[in-house]
Amino acid sequence: MRGTKRRPMSIYIRLRPQWPDEPIVQNLTDTDFYKFTMGQFIFNNFRDVLVKFGFKNRTASVPLARIIPESRLREELDHVRTLRFTNTELHYLRGTNEYQDRMFQEPYLKFLERLRLSNYNLEYRGDNIDLSFGGPWCESSPWEIHGLGIIAELYAREMAKKHSAFGKDVIYAEGKRRLWAKIQLLKENPQVKFSEFGTRRRFSRDWQDYVVAALAEELPATQFRGTSNVFLAQKYGLLPMGTNAHELQMVIAGLMDDDDESLRNSQNQMLDLWWKQYGEALAIFLPDTYGSASFLKIVTEEMLRTWKGPRQDSGDIYAEGERWIRKYKRLGIDPMTKMQIPSDGLIVPVMIKAEEYFRNRFPTSFGWGTDATNDLGFSPLSLVIKAISANGKGLVKLSNNPAKAIGSPEGVKRYMRVFGYSRHRTVACKY
Amino acid sequence: MRGTKRRPMSIYIRLRPQWPDEPIVQNLTDTDFYKFTMGQFIFNNFRDVLVKFGFKNRTASVPLARIIPESRLREELDHVRTLRFTNTELHYLRGTNEYQDRMFQEPYLKFLERLRLSNYNLEYRGDNIDLSFGGPWCESSPWEIHGLGIIAELYAREMAKKHSAFGKDVIYAEGKRRLWAKIQLLKENPQVKFSEFGTRRRFSRDWQDYVVAALAEELPATQFRGTSNVFLAQKYGLLPMGTNAHELQMVIAGLMDDDDESLRNSQNQMLDLWWKQYGEALAIFLPDTYGSASFLKIVTEEMLRTWKGPRQDSGDIYAEGERWIRKYKRLGIDPMTKMQIPSDGLIVPVMIKAEEYFRNRFPTSFGWGTDATNDLGFSPLSLVIKAISANGKGLVKLSNNPAKAIGSPEGVKRYMRVFGYSRHRTVACKY
Repeated sequence: MRGTKRRPMSIYIRLRPQWPDEPIVQNLTDTDFYKFTMGQFIFNNFRDVLVKFGFKNRTASVPLARIIPESRLREELDHVRTLRFTNTELHYLRGTNEYQDRMFQEPYLKFLERLRLSNYNLEYRGDNIDLSFGGPWCESSPWEIHGLGIIAELYAREMAKKHSAFGKDVIYAEGKRRLWAKIQLLKENPQVKFSEFGTRRRFSRDWQDYVVAALAEELPATQFRGTSNVFLAQKYGLLPMGTNAHELQMVIAGLMDDDDESLRNSQNQMLDLWWKQYGEALAIFLPDTYGSASFLKIVTEEMLRTWKGPRQDSGDIYAEGERWIRKYKRLGIDPMTKMQIPSDGLIVPVMIKAEEYFRNRFPTSFGWGTDATNDLGFSPLSLVIKAISANGKGLVKLSNNPAKAIGSPEGVKRYMRVFGYSRHRTVACKY
Repeated sequence: MRGTKRRPMSIYIRLRPQWPDEPIVQNLTDTDFYKFTMGQFIFNNFRDVLVKFGFKNRTASVPLARIIPESRLREELDHVRTLRFTNTELHYLRGTNEYQDRMFQEPYLKFLERLRLSNYNLEYRGDNIDLSFGGPWCESSPWEIHGLGIIAELYAREMAKKHSAFGKDVIYAEGKRRLWAKIQLLKENPQVKFSEFGTRRRFSRDWQDYVVAALAEELPATQFRGTSNVFLAQKYGLLPMGTNAHELQMVIAGLMDDDDESLRNSQNQMLDLWWKQYGEALAIFLPDTYGSASFLKIVTEEMLRTWKGPRQDSGDIYAEGERWIRKYKRLGIDPMTKMQIPSDGLIVPVMIKAEEYFRNRFPTSFGWGTDATNDLGFSPLSLVIKAISANGKGLVKLSNNPAKAIGSPEGVKRYMRVFGYSRHRTVACKY
């Protein structure tokens, strides 16, 4: 038998588009909802503050600068700066009334209409990518999500390049199989309620889209509550989810850190302003910025009574929940009238276990992130883009996990002292 | 928070087409190559014999008639009868020279140009589908593969109907993952050589296409030798694989079974005629029709010297190989100058083990079927369409596995006696 010459193959049942030759970010709404709730708050209260955001790859073993070509990164970043909000997107935001009637007001929407993202500073240094975004807070803040999405997806594309067309398809096949198994587990546990929070560390835009579509098809709205991604909430008619992030507390602390008393007070001031903006609708605490223990000493009883409850973004999920249950009970508040939103590196079995643990004690709704949108057989990177300075002053974050601390050593030390930070266990960051 | 009304989802990264609303058989070349090598042989030698083929579902636990709607089955069968060979397909067959220059001659090609498949008889009886195809042998024989492909895919589509769009996609994702794992195993064992023989029991036409495309992309032609599917061989520039099937020996036995001697002689007569048609090019024995042990008693020493070797389609893979090695050695023939083609329900680990077992003793090339084209998490059915009568006389097959025997009890008993059939172990049919 003679051999035959092979023609190039084409896979018939295939991903489409597999890795399209298209920009990664295509819509300014392809970001977390909290960027808009915070955006309006910043626009109304801190319009003139200059805030710098810095990129950090916490997965030190991966020399990102050797993997992602600088020119590709610049291309994607430049492309985001050419984007503008479309009329349809502004209509969607204007029409958002799930939390409050017309929660986004005309001045902020007018601002969005003209918004152009701040410039970026990019330098490749050895293994590391030095990337920061500085400008008026409202113009630098959106970079958090777009920057992370770009770097995560460029990394995924570079990893995928090593594979054949079939191999690339199998990456998604493996992702689908894993997603399927998780959804089966969730179906068996309908009492576990969650939202999808995985935009920032998604494998790719297309993959997050697929995941959200599958969750919406398979699970009832009583279980899959919504997505933090505004573009996908709009696309699939889901509830857009989100309130606020560490950057608010960090920047406001930075602006008020002239003396210790003022620094300590900054946190309640921020909470007061937030309440003034959105009232109960978005009254979710993010207590871990300077440690949840100190937060519970600072926050007023009145706030604890009126706000809905905490988002738990670091620390031991059980210990943090217990901390809040104890506090509420000491004040005669029934924790069952409150809620908590754990959102730190969750996987489905942990959500199931934690729901059972807190059942009939403290209502729990989960923010499910990286494990939802970046679990296809590759290890996801632990990437962050965080506020690092405000009007030139360095910022500090402590969190319940010292491994997640941000800031100069002196700054971290001072904040620890001022906020009475102690007894938090260091845990390796999974994501 | 108010709930939002969900719009219907659309999966973005998706199979296309998932289960297209298209006929299952779209080309008369979407069949095994041996249908043409046998077809020409039949056309030249047995043109006027009337042969009936009957369908049998060996997976008795599955009540096929309750699952596949009769109207759908009729629709698909009727569609095949409307198909004609295209000019391109006839060009491809005319140009086939991998085994012999212009192996398909003009009279046969002219016949194909006018070929219209014989009619079918279909009756639903309780759980069972009664389906047969009778007519001139050349016109009924092609139904074997088309009929099996239609029933297997209609079954798969009905199974898939229970699943959501995401669920359907995950079926293929699981298939891709399994295929990937098998291909990795094959890459680690490049000495294992095989062809794809899975048309008759494929999950779907699209899936077989995907599998063959992936095999061709991932493995060198020295390992993945070709496919039995003519359409896919043409599409991907692969070697079309196949020689002959049991129907030849069964029909010719049936035509010559007036007395025992003549019945016994029928087998060598068929081999002589086959050699006259194709010479060494397609000189592969199919010894198990009436048991390999009796075959080796009947076949002449001359044939054993000139023919390439056996396709082993039933019985224990090691014992059958040993049987041939012993026979060759007894005749002073070096088995290393011959070859065997095991093709009975193979899975990759068995191919690896058998290759190692026979290495440097008996060259082995595998025919990999159902495990290649129908392993996506559902149990494939064991379906066959076999010749059951010739010019009105019932036909018999014994095989090396009594579970695969075909024919009336008296016929089977007589054939066992005539061919000295004995000592074969009954094994449940996996496929």
